[in-house]
Amino acid sequence: MSHYYRLVISCPDRVGIVARVSGFIAGHGGSITEASQHSDLATGRFFMRYEILADSLGMGAGELREAFAPLAREFDMTWSLHDTRERRRVVLMVSRETHCLVDLLYRWTAGELDCEIAAVISNHDDMRGLAEWHDIPYHHVPVIPDTKPQAFAQVEQLVDVTGADCIVLARYMQILPPALCERYAGQVINIHHSFLPSFAGAKPYHQAYQRGVKLIGATCHYVTEELDAGPIIEQDIHRVSHCHTPDDLVRFGRDVEKAVLARGLRWHLEDRVLIHGNKTVVFA
Amino acid sequence: MSHYYRLVISCPDRVGIVARVSGFIAGHGGSITEASQHSDLATGRFFMRYEILADSLGMGAGELREAFAPLAREFDMTWSLHDTRERRRVVLMVSRETHCLVDLLYRWTAGELDCEIAAVISNHDDMRGLAEWHDIPYHHVPVIPDTKPQAFAQVEQLVDVTGADCIVLARYMQILPPALCERYAGQVINIHHSFLPSFAGAKPYHQAYQRGVKLIGATCHYVTEELDAGPIIEQDIHRVSHCHTPDDLVRFGRDVEKAVLARGLRWHLEDRVLIHGNKTVVFA
Amino acid sequence: MSHYYRLVISCPDRVGIVARVSGFIAGHGGSITEASQHSDLATGRFFMRYEILADSLGMGAGELREAFAPLAREFDMTWSLHDTRERRRVVLMVSRETHCLVDLLYRWTAGELDCEIAAVISNHDDMRGLAEWHDIPYHHVPVIPDTKPQAFAQVEQLVDVTGADCIVLARYMQILPPALCERYAGQVINIHHSFLPSFAGAKPYHQAYQRGVKLIGATCHYVTEELDAGPIIEQDIHRVSHCHTPDDLVRFGRDVEKAVLARGLRWHLEDRVLIHGNKTVVFA
Amino acid sequence: MSHYYRLVISCPDRVGIVARVSGFIAGHGGSITEASQHSDLATGRFFMRYEILADSLGMGAGELREAFAPLAREFDMTWSLHDTRERRRVVLMVSRETHCLVDLLYRWTAGELDCEIAAVISNHDDMRGLAEWHDIPYHHVPVIPDTKPQAFAQVEQLVDVTGADCIVLARYMQILPPALCERYAGQVINIHHSFLPSFAGAKPYHQAYQRGVKLIGATCHYVTEELDAGPIIEQDIHRVSHCHTPDDLVRFGRDVEKAVLARGLRWHLEDRVLIHGNKTVVFA
Repeated sequence: MSHYYRLVISCPDRVGIVARVSGFIAGHGGSITEASQHSDLATGRFFMRYEILADSLGMGAGELREAFAPLAREFDMTWSLHDTRERRRVVLMVSRETHCLVDLLYRWTAGELDCEIAAVISNHDDMRGLAEWHDIPYHHVPVIPDTKPQAFAQVEQLVDVTGADCIVLARYMQILPPALCERYAGQVINIHHSFLPSFAGAKPYHQAYQRGVKLIGATCHYVTEELDAGPIIEQDIHRVSHCHTPDDLVRFGRDVEKAVLARGLRWHLEDRVLIHGNKTVVFA
Repeated sequence: MSHYYRLVISCPDRVGIVARVSGFIAGHGGSITEASQHSDLATGRFFMRYEILADSLGMGAGELREAFAPLAREFDMTWSLHDTRERRRVVLMVSRETHCLVDLLYRWTAGELDCEIAAVISNHDDMRGLAEWHDIPYHHVPVIPDTKPQAFAQVEQLVDVTGADCIVLARYMQILPPALCERYAGQVINIHHSFLPSFAGAKPYHQAYQRGVKLIGATCHYVTEELDAGPIIEQDIHRVSHCHTPDDLVRFGRDVEKAVLARGLRWHLEDRVLIHGNKTVVFA
Repeated sequence: MSHYYRLVISCPDRVGIVARVSGFIAGHGGSITEASQHSDLATGRFFMRYEILADSLGMGAGELREAFAPLAREFDMTWSLHDTRERRRVVLMVSRETHCLVDLLYRWTAGELDCEIAAVISNHDDMRGLAEWHDIPYHHVPVIPDTKPQAFAQVEQLVDVTGADCIVLARYMQILPPALCERYAGQVINIHHSFLPSFAGAKPYHQAYQRGVKLIGATCHYVTEELDAGPIIEQDIHRVSHCHTPDDLVRFGRDVEKAVLARGLRWHLEDRVLIHGNKTVVFA
Repeated sequence: MSHYYRLVISCPDRVGIVARVSGFIAGHGGSITEASQHSDLATGRFFMRYEILADSLGMGAGELREAFAPLAREFDMTWSLHDTRERRRVVLMVSRETHCLVDLLYRWTAGELDCEIAAVISNHDDMRGLAEWHDIPYHHVPVIPDTKPQAFAQVEQLVDVTGADCIVLARYMQILPPALCERYAGQVINIHHSFLPSFAGAKPYHQAYQRGVKLIGATCHYVTEELDAGPIIEQDIHRVSHCHTPDDLVRFGRDVEKAVLARGLRWHLEDRVLIHGNKTVVFA
């Protein structure tokens, strides 16, 4: 099967970037199968993503990175080149609400998510059977107030051991410690069960019910130190009415959460999400 | 043309309400063309709305009200009976952004809004031509910091004179004084250009842009003393991305605002919106 | 836990139906927790659905049916009374595309679908493991051109044996024989992977791709003899663009299909779907 | 105010196109403010659109076209270069349903549509007042069966005289003769009041009502000889239920039609729509 290099760049905008980068690729015979650019006029920052057919280039990813480095330096780029044969390693974290976990595992089985699932970590033991049925290691790390630091030290160690480069909080109802957020900045994806910035924090569907909103939502975002305030990747909504109880909102919400998290994670895994301050550029 | 009586009731829930009310209507030969009920389990409150073909009853609205009153007392009802021949009188208030005004006037002309438009009041004089082209009186009431109380006294007097029973803030960018809000409680409809409770207050599209949300919205609600906090009637959203500038958000938002306000106002005029604490029951 | 009686009625419209039915319920002390009515002006037909708290009545479902029968005859009603303790028995049929099956099983486990799943029948053996993990009998009934009649005789016998009152074609890619459609009229629910009536028949996503539509959809409908032409219960769509290949359409479509089928089936199981000629009244 | 050159290209895909085109622009100091590409894998065709800040280039549109021509020939491009100072000239055609016309005129006044409106042509005289209030010439060309050829000869002449390069059928309920379709291929935009390919032809909302669909829609497309079968630019939908009469569908439909036509026309005017066989590439 064909594999691809994904070249992702962010740099100060100036004349000629596209010409130089595309010229570089063409100069090596590279066939670009997908190209996206964005110039942010407010900040003067430029973003691009190229998907290049690997076999069209006469070199491997390492060699390509080396060849590209001088150009990257010249334009002061923040950049990465990702070979699609090197599949990302994802750790899924979950608490009692399991719909997102079940949904992601199904999508992964169906080939919708291009990654390895390195482990499932939970503060409960309920989903061990399902994880192991998928041949995925399951780690039960209870989190109780008295031993939180130890628990998260264990979580961090488990993530280290798996060599994961992405952590998905698939309705994991514990707050990660700031140090962990910082260490994995831009690699931890959360699904929040409200249309942020409305109803941050606990029990958002009950907050929504109390406020009498006519649409509920879910938000997929990168985790930062400040709770529910990180860069938003994707959001969606579901219509509700006076007929619906908080339980109905929770039920509708499950579907929105599943869909939003699955889209956000897929885009992240395909290098389509570029962080820009506290916002994202998403080349969906 | 047929006319209708709209009977709208809210009362403590108990067995037999529907039987007694529908029995009362049937006992007078009344043909119910539309019926809606809602039992709010959390508060034990019951809501209903009947649309009754007027000619099927052998009496006028006044007589019907009198005949119904004992039953209403028995069940401790808050209720109203509205004859569709008595068209509501609406005052539209607008500032510089005119898309909602233009949209409402078109819908009114096209027969989508069953009301009289008694007047347009604005703190600018720009839309006089359009209003007068529709044969609607236009009142220019400038609002400047020093003379706010006088300005709103004039607004109140104008509303009084028109005999209006509904005030629509169609992007009217001034805050009504508390006394006015209270006097017209449940009769003042505002369109706020965000998906409340996100981005209450000023410049919501710019707030949304700064936060990097992926959906923007608009909210139609009843005005209460607390800014942008009244009972929500209707909301909707529009998808945005990193490509879009604040100006794009404003442009998309115009379409959402128009649609949301038009739906909310139409439902209000058809007695489909029942206030329940700080929420609404909408029999749409 | 409380149980309910669901009274569902369709009859010629005339004055006093609601009064008589609600009077009957109230006369037995019945507490109505949800009520829906619809008068179809074009056909003069009336539809209603009551959800009645069983314990508020001093009688069982059988006694209630007997007591109600004279009234039903008087108004020439087509009607049913369903005790929620008598859970419906559903047979799921599936071919190679398993997303709907997996989704329904998860929702069933999560308590979203109030039914027994009596069996899974498939023309392939792939999903035996999953079904049996849920303790649901799995029947592999291969369908090949030469032995179709025998295969469907076997399917019919299996359905008979389970005592099922609902058959769900959860992406079952075989056409049921007319006799089976007729025998289970109004009880066989199909998910078609297009926004009907567009793209009936085979490979709808490829048809949609060829036509260059900007939205794809899915349709949940009752099966009738004429392929993809039965009463529609629910539909939804997903936005697509020139970027998307037929494979992308298939992938997006899976999510729409799951959601649409789950909603349609849930409404069916809750007696919310009333057939009206080749259309449906859905008291959602 | 800044103006822009919009370079729009379609050609056989091959390695190096982006490099050569972006190199050409950069070589003249051109600053690209927006860039879009698409490689259609099924047909091997490549599409691109560049928005270039005119003042960043040391030449006018004519000179730029001349300089670019050899490169265009080399890659066998179908291409155009459009100076945003040369505003397109649009003719709006309308019959009795005027919501799209009113909506387009408002958007045009509000600056959402970058074009001249050269004329309004109608087979009725009703909208003369509104057109003339906008200082737009209005032509009443009655179309009756006996004199159709003469009527359309007159329409064609009027379009010729205005020098229009875009004709919008804003609910114009007459079928254009094939010769006119052919002559203005890719320049005539229609709004059809259904979700095509469902319900092509007459009275689509009534067809939709009869079929009992749960969503209605509208489709903006280029007109070709075959009725309602041309390349689709944009579509959208609105949810309906058994409660809604054909009149309700018509009313909901008006909002969908307005929105869909406005988006489609805006994209056309901004050179964002590239025709690809009977489909479109839309760089929205």
